[in-house]
Amino acid sequence: MTDTIDGVLGEIRFAPDGLVPAIAQQHDTGEVLMVAWMNREAVRVTLAEGMACYWSRSRQALWRKGDISGQTQRLVEFRLDCDGDTVLLLVDQHGVACHTGRRNCFFRAWRNGAWTMIAAPLVDPAQLYPASGSNSRSRSEGSSSGPSASRAS
Amino acid sequence: MTDTIDGVLGEIRFAPDGLVPAIAQQHDTGEVLMVAWMNREAVRVTLAEGMACYWSRSRQALWRKGDISGQTQRLVEFRLDCDGDTVLLLVDQHGVACHTGRRNCFFRAWRNGAWTMIAAPLVDPAQLYPASGSNSRSRSEGSSSGPSASRAS
Repeated sequence: MTDTIDGVLGEIRFAPDGLVPAIAQQHDTGEVLMVAWMNREAVRVTLAEGMACYWSRSRQALWRKGDISGQTQRLVEFRLDCDGDTVLLLVDQHGVACHTGRRNCFFRAWRNGAWTMIAAPLVDPAQLYPASGSNSRSRSEGSSSGPSASRAS
Repeated sequence: MTDTIDGVLGEIRFAPDGLVPAIAQQHDTGEVLMVAWMNREAVRVTLAEGMACYWSRSRQALWRKGDISGQTQRLVEFRLDCDGDTVLLLVDQHGVACHTGRRNCFFRAWRNGAWTMIAAPLVDPAQLYPASGSNSRSRSEGSSSGPSASRAS
C-alpha cells in the first residue's frame, strides 16, 4: 500500500506550505460539498483508510472529516488535475458537509445584487458538536477561521 | 453596479496574497471543470461582464478565460462558502476548460494503484493556441506552472 500511495504523492505538486486545495464532491449528484486542504499525510491517510482526511490549518493537525461530528466522507475516487496542484475527491457524504448544518458550504449565492441564502440547515449545529455547542467546531475539528479552507462539519 | 459588486467583495475573505480559490462547475451537469484563483479585480470583472475572469499567478495579470483559446465560461451564478474564502462559479463552458483540450482538468483518477487517464482530449491543443503551438498557453494566457491554479484553456 505504501508503494502505491507513494505513486500518488509523486504526482501531486504541493505548494511551498506543503498543501494542496481539495474539493469534495458528492460522487453521484455532482454537488460540490466543500473545499479543504491536504498535506502529504492527509492524502496518505485518505487513501489508506478510504475516508476523507484533511489538514486543519487552524489546528495544524490532521483532520479526519467527521471524527467529532460523525459527518464522514467515504472516498469513492481520488482525482488530480492537469498540473497536479488541485485534487478532487469524489465522496459519499454521510449527513451534512458544512459545520452550519447545511449539506454543503456554498449556500450563499449572489442574486439581484445581494447575497441570498439558498439552503437551510438540515441539522442543528449543536447536535453536531454537543460538547461545547454550535461554535465548537473551529476549536475541535475544523479548518481555519482565517483565510483558509471551508468550515465543514 | 459598483455598489453591488462592492457588496460581494465585502463578504469575500481574500488570503494575504489577495487571492481566493475559485472552482468552475458546469451549471447543468455538475462537472467540476477547473480550479483557478481570483483577486478582487477578477471578481469585479466576472460579475460586471458575466464571463469568468481569473487572476493568473504566473503572469500576475487578469486572465479573461478563453480570451486566447475562445473557450470562454459564461457566468450562471456566483456562490460563496460558509467562511467566505472559496468561491464557486456555476458556468456554461464553451468548448473545453482544460489547456490539454479535455473538457475538464481532473482527468487523472487513482485506480487500482495507478493513475488512469479517464478522459481524452476533445480538441487538439494546437488548435486552441495556434500562434505558438500546444505549449503556448502557459506563456499566453494560463495560470502558473508552479504550485498554482489548474492549467485551463
